Parts: sequence; C-alpha cells; structure tokens
Amino acid sequence: MLSENLRRDILKFREERDWSQFHNLRTLSTSIVLEAAELAEHTQWARDSELAAVVAERKPMIEQEVADIVILLTYLAEDLGIDVEHAVDEKLKFNAKRYPVELAKGSARKYDQL
Amino acid sequence: MLSENLRRDILKFREERDWSQFHNLRTLSTSIVLEAAELAEHTQWARDSELAAVVAERKPMIEQEVADIVILLTYLAEDLGIDVEHAVDEKLKFNAKRYPVELAKGSARKYDQL
Amino acid sequence: MLSENLRRDILKFREERDWSQFHNLRTLSTSIVLEAAELAEHTQWARDSELAAVVAERKPMIEQEVADIVILLTYLAEDLGIDVEHAVDEKLKFNAKRYPVELAKGSARKYDQL
Amino acid sequence: MLSENLRRDILKFREERDWSQFHNLRTLSTSIVLEAAELAEHTQWARDSELAAVVAERKPMIEQEVADIVILLTYLAEDLGIDVEHAVDEKLKFNAKRYPVELAKGSARKYDQL
Repeated sequence: MLSENLRRDILKFREERDWSQFHNLRTLSTSIVLEAAELAEHTQWARDSELAAVVAERKPMIEQEVADIVILLTYLAEDLGIDVEHAVDEKLKFNAKRYPVELAKGSARKYDQL
Repeated sequence: MLSENLRRDILKFREERDWSQFHNLRTLSTSIVLEAAELAEHTQWARDSELAAVVAERKPMIEQEVADIVILLTYLAEDLGIDVEHAVDEKLKFNAKRYPVELAKGSARKYDQL
Repeated sequence: MLSENLRRDILKFREERDWSQFHNLRTLSTSIVLEAAELAEHTQWARDSELAAVVAERKPMIEQEVADIVILLTYLAEDLGIDVEHAVDEKLKFNAKRYPVELAKGSARKYDQL
Repeated sequence: MLSENLRRDILKFREERDWSQFHNLRTLSTSIVLEAAELAEHTQWARDSELAAVVAERKPMIEQEVADIVILLTYLAEDLGIDVEHAVDEKLKFNAKRYPVELAKGSARKYDQL
C-alpha cells in the first residue's frame, strides 16, 4: 500500500509536530473509528441505487478519509511494532480456513453461520 | 504498507469466493467501522496506566484487527480506483497547511482551534 | 423512554457491581460506539430489499443492542448530570431552526446543504 | 428517559419533514454510530487526568450528542415496534446472569473472562 519513502514521510510529519506523545493503542484506535465513521457518513442515507452517484460526486473526500485511516494505521504499526505485511499474510491464511471456498463462495454469511 | 504480491493475494481471495458482489462504498466503509470498533474494544476500559499491559497481552489479536482493516481498505481502493500512495501524499500536504509546525507542535488541538 | 423505577434498577445494577469506578465520558462514549456498531452489524451486508427480512429474523438481538445503548446513556446522564428530557427538548428546537419544514421536507440533505 | 409528550414531539418533528422514508434499521443504526462517534470525539486525545476538564468545558455539546442518540433510538423503536422499557428490563435480567455480583463486583472483565 505504501512505499518505504512515504512511510517515512508520515512518521516525519508526526515527529516534526511532536505528536507521538498523544499516540497509544487507545487514542489511535479511537481515531481510526472516528475517521472510518466520516467515511461511512458519505453513504449514511444512500439507497442501493444511489451508491454509484455518491462515489462519483464525493471521490476526493473519500480519498481523504482513506488516507487518514492509512496514516493512523502507519502510526499504530510503528508504535506497536506490527509488521503489516506479515499480519495481512497471516490473516489471509486464517480467513482461508474460516471461509473455505466451497462453503463461502457467493455467501455473505459469517463463518459461524456457513 | 503492502507489496504488489500481497495486494494480489487479497484480491484473489475475494475473487475465489465471489464476494465483490457484496462490496460497495457503503458495505466496505461500514465494515471498516466495525473492524475499527473491534480494535478499540481492546482498550474499552483501560486507564492510561494499563495501556502497555493491554498491548503486551493482546498483540496477536490487535494484529488481526489491523490486518482486517488493511484488507478492507485494499478492496475499497481497488473498487473505487483510489491510488492510496497518491491519496496519502496529497493528505500529508493538506495536513501540513492545516497543522503548520509552529502552531501544532506539541498540541493535540484540532486545526480550527490552533 | 424509561420510567423512574427502571432508571433506578439500572443504577442499582451498577452499584451492586461497583462498576462506576470504570465509568467516565471516555469509557461510556466508547462503549456506546461499540454497542451501536453491534447494532449496525445486523445490516452490514444487507441490500435495500433484504432489510425487512433482517428485522424479522433478528428482532430479539436488535432489542438487546438497543437496551445496551439505553443503559449506557442512563449511566452517562447520571454521572454528568444531564437532564435527558431537557436536552432532547432543546435539541428539537435547535434542529427545527437548522431544518425548517419548507426546506427540509422530503430531503435527506444535511443542514449546510439545504 | 422520555415522557410520552416528548416522544410524540420527536415523531411529529419527523412526520412534518416526511423523513420516515429515509429511516430503516440500516440507516438509523449507522446514524447512531455516527452520533456516538461525535460523542466519543470529545475525549479522543484525553488522558485520564484531563477527563473532568473536558466534561466541564464541553457539557452543552455533549448534551446535544446525547439528545441526537435518544432521538434516533426513538425513531428506531417506533419503526421496529420495540418496547424500550421492556427491552431494558429483559436485558438487565440477562446481564444479571452473565455478571453475577459475586464474580463481577469490582471487575471490568467481559462475562466470558470472569
């Protein structure tokens, strides 16, 4: 998702402002919830048939919310020593067992209801 | 954050299960809120002095929630044609104007209260 | 929404368990977010045409999430000295100015876009 | 929490604006999440020692967010035919079994970890 250069820019941005004193698992995870809520607000009242129009009209704002979440995840991964690549790889393997193709294909059900 | 290979693995996981029919801005942003809420649940009752212990005890679960959010963001970026690198780069420039170092340094205030 | 008797039962439940030591604006508002997320999870993947079926199938669970939110709001109102009746009455007056009938009728737009 | 009169005022507010066409379990539960997120934003960066000051400074805004949640819950209960008094009463009984006083007293643990 991010080049090493951009990751460094994100961390430099924080360091220049001396903001890491405010960051911990609680404040960063709360902040991710708040940014995700702003993303979800774009479709708060949208019917199925209106979704494409929302995306077309609000793309720049949506990109900003997505960027905010990625920036916060970068801080969290840095502070907690999380290797995101490795975590995603492990989660895909975990999900592959929870959602085997033959059961999960074409279904939106949760793993405990497949 | 993610190599091109891993990004392809994430998309392949979805394609094998024919899940993109369920994905749009609304369902994916709602899902990101729900996963972020699970991340925030780890510190639901934690006092400041208890935060380090929460991280130490629950690191593997925290990594799973972070991975879930990254996977959902990957689907969203793919479906909406968002260049995450570019979006983050633009947001950092935008934030640099909202939070100039001389005003924002050491402050947790929002841009409109600096 | 609640009789005075039931309000007392909610507070007594907490007192018997000595839980008010864990309650403050941050922990209670985070908890309301988490319970609201559980409520929203019931329609995570639902298309417009599937909403009625979700309600029909999951009514008892939905009632439990609603109850959880009301219980948490009761604790918050008690601890912060909020008169909920008065707050709602004031908010309706405030909203009546933001959303005058002649502009807001039949529109899902936010007040700043009417 | 609410008198019958105030409940009617809330419903009348919606009827005058013809807004019930936009309300269903999905849009209302998403809206409750968004309002709860606004409530949680007040303590986004607050350390334990700063919580009392946040409440003192922001009480009127907090009351508005609480009112918004109560208004949305009133619409949801009306539309789904939920008797909130009854739902809360049942949930307290349910919680009393999950959190027996002798195990739960003075503990912030979840029921499955008591």
